[in-house]
Amino acid sequence: MPPLVTLTTDLGDVYASQMKGMLYRRLAPGSVVDLSHDLPAHGVSESAFLLRHMAQRFPAGTVHVAVVDPGVGSPRAPLGIVTGEGSSLVGPDNGLLWPLASALGSPRSFRLDPTRIAAHGLVSPTFEGRDLFAPAAALLASGSSLEFLGSAFEPIRYEIPAPRPRADGLEGQVLHVDRFGNLITNVLTSAGAEVGTKVAVQFGRGPVRRSSFQRTYADLPEGLWAVLGSSFGYLEVSAREGSAARRFGVRVGDRVRLSWRR
Amino acid sequence: MPPLVTLTTDLGDVYASQMKGMLYRRLAPGSVVDLSHDLPAHGVSESAFLLRHMAQRFPAGTVHVAVVDPGVGSPRAPLGIVTGEGSSLVGPDNGLLWPLASALGSPRSFRLDPTRIAAHGLVSPTFEGRDLFAPAAALLASGSSLEFLGSAFEPIRYEIPAPRPRADGLEGQVLHVDRFGNLITNVLTSAGAEVGTKVAVQFGRGPVRRSSFQRTYADLPEGLWAVLGSSFGYLEVSAREGSAARRFGVRVGDRVRLSWRR
Amino acid sequence: MPPLVTLTTDLGDVYASQMKGMLYRRLAPGSVVDLSHDLPAHGVSESAFLLRHMAQRFPAGTVHVAVVDPGVGSPRAPLGIVTGEGSSLVGPDNGLLWPLASALGSPRSFRLDPTRIAAHGLVSPTFEGRDLFAPAAALLASGSSLEFLGSAFEPIRYEIPAPRPRADGLEGQVLHVDRFGNLITNVLTSAGAEVGTKVAVQFGRGPVRRSSFQRTYADLPEGLWAVLGSSFGYLEVSAREGSAARRFGVRVGDRVRLSWRR
Repeated sequence: MPPLVTLTTDLGDVYASQMKGMLYRRLAPGSVVDLSHDLPAHGVSESAFLLRHMAQRFPAGTVHVAVVDPGVGSPRAPLGIVTGEGSSLVGPDNGLLWPLASALGSPRSFRLDPTRIAAHGLVSPTFEGRDLFAPAAALLASGSSLEFLGSAFEPIRYEIPAPRPRADGLEGQVLHVDRFGNLITNVLTSAGAEVGTKVAVQFGRGPVRRSSFQRTYADLPEGLWAVLGSSFGYLEVSAREGSAARRFGVRVGDRVRLSWRR
Repeated sequence: MPPLVTLTTDLGDVYASQMKGMLYRRLAPGSVVDLSHDLPAHGVSESAFLLRHMAQRFPAGTVHVAVVDPGVGSPRAPLGIVTGEGSSLVGPDNGLLWPLASALGSPRSFRLDPTRIAAHGLVSPTFEGRDLFAPAAALLASGSSLEFLGSAFEPIRYEIPAPRPRADGLEGQVLHVDRFGNLITNVLTSAGAEVGTKVAVQFGRGPVRRSSFQRTYADLPEGLWAVLGSSFGYLEVSAREGSAARRFGVRVGDRVRLSWRR
Repeated sequence: MPPLVTLTTDLGDVYASQMKGMLYRRLAPGSVVDLSHDLPAHGVSESAFLLRHMAQRFPAGTVHVAVVDPGVGSPRAPLGIVTGEGSSLVGPDNGLLWPLASALGSPRSFRLDPTRIAAHGLVSPTFEGRDLFAPAAALLASGSSLEFLGSAFEPIRYEIPAPRPRADGLEGQVLHVDRFGNLITNVLTSAGAEVGTKVAVQFGRGPVRRSSFQRTYADLPEGLWAVLGSSFGYLEVSAREGSAARRFGVRVGDRVRLSWRR
């Protein structure tokens, strides 16, 4: 089967569609899969986390294009990565691609050379997604190799931050607020405790609130909240059919402290 | 032609993309069609109405996956349905799938068995869409049968509520407010009257307002409103290039009373 | 390769998905590409500009369906256009299709005949997108010709408005506010000046503000704004990692006056 190209941006439909036009100049119908075009504008670290989780289950050989790029047009490098299982990643060298590349394994990185990719080497300084990254992805999905489109390169290696141990628990942060207002933390579910165990939660310098670990939303009494193992593999703070983010006034990047008897 | 898989959720892009990754592990490029990922969060009855109308014109043999699932992880059954014309439906057993299944005709229902579907039978208690429904849909689109993936089952049969007759008309409710603020009711267009007939409309306990039946938006004088036959086959209350929902302060689920001389 | 069908509307997912169902009754998996379904409601002139830029890079032979149609059901004609390079455009005759048709070149226009397209000639007076435009596009993508589906016709020729020369510069307007709050004007980048040149900008009757031409966002000091050559080929007013639209209180259609030494 011909490879898929996934598309993940903070650009909105109008710019993303221009990238699709460039991709389909070379690729067969059905090749392009939209992951999201509504990532937080200029939110590189949250987007790096989300890209990893949205893209990592696609089949080996997929080409993943991602653009969250406040530095477009600056000297930051245009980046291509090939992983051990044969998937490719294309986007700006600002850390966005690294968590996905690490998860897929054995990444090798290349600085893309516009003169080998763009029509006449011309690239809009405000929209490399359309003029450089989309054409590069179309070439990779058509059989070109990164060795041919660029040269070996040492990229920015952004890692999802790990929580810090505290005397009575862990201090982490909120990586993502999902559509339901659930607060996804950077504390691995495996670091948590058995269902039913009591837990104390503190956001930033707010009050210490007490709840328990639970298995799923439906196990929560209406109006209550708890700490669950999210589908991301990290602990999340959730309110039953309500927004924990609104309830606690929490945003992405806020500090969260979890304490429980171990 | 290989079958399509449609995807309809209230999950937003981040979770829906993870489902697409699972689907494409098994399916050919172009197989997955996004219907919506912005359905009203946890709004099962409105979503059941919308799913039916979004999905019912797809060709026979299509696999429809839908996830609006406040009870994820609870004992509510994971449901698969096959219809007389050979389409399949996959999602939670909470009524969401039933109006579409009824419209397609001759539905037979099955309780999905996770041990026959999920990798090692492991399913996240907060995201069955990714770990159970998407893999089940991929198997069905690849030729598996529901007889093999589950066992016969009696599902929840949710029907779109019918309006009640009143001395001088009908009392129904607002099923959906569309992007333009048009109010789609549960009163069949065929229950209405000829274009030009006068009609009285009352929302909830609000004032009785007088207007008329019209054929289309462009027949309304600017700033005016009327009752039209919507494209859903039900009567709608519409304001010319404005939002009837905002004008009348109406929401999904509100009662609406229509009276006209018959 | 079979042709693509692009879909661009102000209808939102619920109505757009119904159009996709109609398209896939006839077309192979992967044929339909969503450009946007969130165009400004009833915003024909802005949408005409956006459609052109979203669609113009797709390969020759693509069928472009667009629906932004406040006059649905009125006597305005249903329009089909074929261009010199063999692409087709389908939508309402209200100017929406014309900038794209002009950009693709050598357009020939046809009034669509519902009796040759819709099932039994039946078309909902509130949703021609589903009952007429989608079936027409499916027929065109399957090999039918506009000569067969309609008759030659003189359409509304809407052009993107040109800026007017002033003693000390140009007076244009804001065509589009993008997701980041950048203000895309109707002044061609080629009418601008070298990077570093000073420029005075006045929105509507607001104060005259002074800045300079710059090459890209990253060249702007944090918190500052400037005039750039946008990826659309027109000058844009941009604030570094902030919304110029919010900063200056500007909306689509607002007048903008640019003055610089030439």
